[in-house]
Amino acid sequence: YDYDGPHLVTQVPGPRSKMLLESLDTIQNTEAVQFFCDFKKSRGNWLVDADGNRLLDVYSQIASLPLGYNHPAIVSALADENNLSTFANRPALGVLPPVDFPDTLQKLLLVAPPGFSQVQTMACGTCANENAYKAVFFWYRARQRGSLIPTEEELESCMRHEAPGSPNLTILGFKGGFHGRTIGCASSSHAAPLHKVDLPVLDWPIAPFPVTKYPLDVYAQENRQEEERCLDKAFQLMQEYKNKGRPVAGVVVEPIQSEGGDRHASNSFFRQLRKIAKENESAFIVDEVQTGAGLTGKMWAHEYWGLEESPDIVTFSKKMVIGGLYFKEDFRPKGPFRIMNTWLGDPAKLVILEAVLSVIHQDRLIDNMTETGQVILQGLEKLQDKHAEVLSNARGRGAFCAVDFPNTLTRDKAVAALRNKGVQCAGCGARSLRIRPALIFQPHHARMFLDILEETTLEM
Amino acid sequence: YDYDGPHLVTQVPGPRSKMLLESLDTIQNTEAVQFFCDFKKSRGNWLVDADGNRLLDVYSQIASLPLGYNHPAIVSALADENNLSTFANRPALGVLPPVDFPDTLQKLLLVAPPGFSQVQTMACGTCANENAYKAVFFWYRARQRGSLIPTEEELESCMRHEAPGSPNLTILGFKGGFHGRTIGCASSSHAAPLHKVDLPVLDWPIAPFPVTKYPLDVYAQENRQEEERCLDKAFQLMQEYKNKGRPVAGVVVEPIQSEGGDRHASNSFFRQLRKIAKENESAFIVDEVQTGAGLTGKMWAHEYWGLEESPDIVTFSKKMVIGGLYFKEDFRPKGPFRIMNTWLGDPAKLVILEAVLSVIHQDRLIDNMTETGQVILQGLEKLQDKHAEVLSNARGRGAFCAVDFPNTLTRDKAVAALRNKGVQCAGCGARSLRIRPALIFQPHHARMFLDILEETTLEM
Ligand code: FES
Repeated sequence: YDYDGPHLVTQVPGPRSKMLLESLDTIQNTEAVQFFCDFKKSRGNWLVDADGNRLLDVYSQIASLPLGYNHPAIVSALADENNLSTFANRPALGVLPPVDFPDTLQKLLLVAPPGFSQVQTMACGTCANENAYKAVFFWYRARQRGSLIPTEEELESCMRHEAPGSPNLTILGFKGGFHGRTIGCASSSHAAPLHKVDLPVLDWPIAPFPVTKYPLDVYAQENRQEEERCLDKAFQLMQEYKNKGRPVAGVVVEPIQSEGGDRHASNSFFRQLRKIAKENESAFIVDEVQTGAGLTGKMWAHEYWGLEESPDIVTFSKKMVIGGLYFKEDFRPKGPFRIMNTWLGDPAKLVILEAVLSVIHQDRLIDNMTETGQVILQGLEKLQDKHAEVLSNARGRGAFCAVDFPNTLTRDKAVAALRNKGVQCAGCGARSLRIRPALIFQPHHARMFLDILEETTLEM
Repeated sequence: YDYDGPHLVTQVPGPRSKMLLESLDTIQNTEAVQFFCDFKKSRGNWLVDADGNRLLDVYSQIASLPLGYNHPAIVSALADENNLSTFANRPALGVLPPVDFPDTLQKLLLVAPPGFSQVQTMACGTCANENAYKAVFFWYRARQRGSLIPTEEELESCMRHEAPGSPNLTILGFKGGFHGRTIGCASSSHAAPLHKVDLPVLDWPIAPFPVTKYPLDVYAQENRQEEERCLDKAFQLMQEYKNKGRPVAGVVVEPIQSEGGDRHASNSFFRQLRKIAKENESAFIVDEVQTGAGLTGKMWAHEYWGLEESPDIVTFSKKMVIGGLYFKEDFRPKGPFRIMNTWLGDPAKLVILEAVLSVIHQDRLIDNMTETGQVILQGLEKLQDKHAEVLSNARGRGAFCAVDFPNTLTRDKAVAALRNKGVQCAGCGARSLRIRPALIFQPHHARMFLDILEETTLEM
């Protein structure tokens, strides 16, 4: 059900997209809109726009579409009468779950990272992370006071925003990290001023993230020095904040800093970071919102690390269709209504996820990502050798790849040019092009993409 | 398609619910779970549980179901082939909206509160409120610096969590108010320690909310004094915080404090509050997440107030099927990606909302809420006259009603007893029973409910 190539009939965005943009602009800010999509006509890896242009999609709705457009398995899950009542009646999952909820969650646990038996659904990556932080704070305070149950003094003082009820705990984030845009998430995100400026935040500590050279293994020695510098600094910050009476209750990190510009570090860096967190009695949270669900060639990107002790919490969303967190038993809150909101996710999305997971399994899509990823990365490396003045720093894990342009302007020009040659893509960080196809992206799609990228590069 | 009465075959929760609870409890905390639901068998105002018990639902999934269970209009919207691609392909709405998005939003604007031409969808009430606060902070800072565009110094200092980039702005909330459970929302919520304890928050100001006597008009004079005390205090806090260099950028208030225990104030209170906010150059945010979409007998509860100048932002979710915010043009952010997340809501929910809104219109469901609400409120008043030792403070607007029990214990016993007599309901605040039926709840349902409530009262 895939198309066989790009098809361009107008500039992208074309006249119809521009007309729709004008109309949408009377209702809300539209400065981030690229063009309008015709989802009825889109198929597989091919996104059709409002003007009938057909683009090979290596962005997949900000890395959130697992199986591309109108996948037959999703379409038939939607048509299945058995699922109708799930789509028609959205429950308040925390108080009145549907009869099949335990079974559905078991399926979510089947794809859990090693070491997890607990899961809590949420509706997006933002509430996944905010609630991961909450679970960490609850756990940390329970240990500090030696009891799972808050004291009278705590219950009373929190209503005045005072300690001990409102504790001065922190989450350690990394320079270049991104975890969402609500106040808690923004306080731990440091990818770009745009996510933080004008917003009051909690003053949480920020550790440097290693500025590594690619390929990581070629520059292993230099990178190790840089990684050690960053680990030392993270360790220092944890000590410093503990001494200040503002302990780091949790460390949050992405396996690949995504919005921050596809920044990678070695497996050893993460193994050591996990140890440092443990040593400082901080929880270790891995944010797999963008890296999770197979794109890297493993279900969870942190599986590459070879951790001795698994993370305490792993958050997910995007390609997982629903948000949520896997967590260790210690991070289960005591008492009702502590990790709660009206919906706590949506069983309708779990129906779709179930279809997605079985396609991933049957079609061996994670292996496909490894295979396709090799084609992408080798292709990028070849291109950067040939066009070193334009392309550099090819890097990736599975099909989660990126390459750099000399500067923001050239990158942005390239993204627009690629679009007009039939590739839908987007940047990240200051000068990177990020590649985030759906899991059904195959080697021949990769080759089409690389050809168009080379053509574009020649024009830069 | 409605059933004609409760039907009980076991205790609620029954053996099957208990078995499912055990199974769910191996995966996550279940202390807030009431019982498991069989959504296939549920219909209209009737919720059928895992054991086949059929309950009249006056809680509607924490006030979030607009048309009860399996409403034919929703079922047929789901079956409509035309909608299939909307359900199968969730877009990143802020960058790649579907071709019909401007038209869909126009429909959302048709039911906007008076004075609004702008709307931004979100995925839940929490992100609606967090983003309302963000829009307010952006607006406030733009005014302070005399420009919509942040300065270099701001862009740089925000990355260190320092002023001026990370401004020390605040949101004024009210004692008893509830706006969500992420860090920003929790910093402005003061309904119960449970929502705040162990959580680091921003120390935002808290004004007293009037402790009024019911019926409001009978106690108009006393209530006015109390309301003036609270307004004076709110005014003082705004001055005080401005002098401290922590200005109140926005005031957030619910038309009826819902989680806080169905606390009402007079129209005049809200009119004056709106004026005070304006006088202090603070934005006025009305949180209609629980009160919006018709239950009170108006589409938006704040329409009762007779405001001279409409609110600056109105947030919604729950019965609106999708979250979001209506906002004035001044609150439109300048620049891309400032109010943003991956999904920004979900067109699949907008399809359902469209069906809901047309049923509300065709079946005159808002008038139905006025009519049914009268039956409920008069019934509650009659019951509290007859059983003054058990029931008091009957109050409501439309079918958004509540009544008090002597204490938490009796209220909780009554909720359990009601459930076992065939009414699904829940409390709010310390000792209130909240009544939150779907919009299809009719006078004869109200009479059934009142009869069962009286029976229960006699046992207390
Ligand atoms: S915060 Fe995640 S859906 Fe609203």
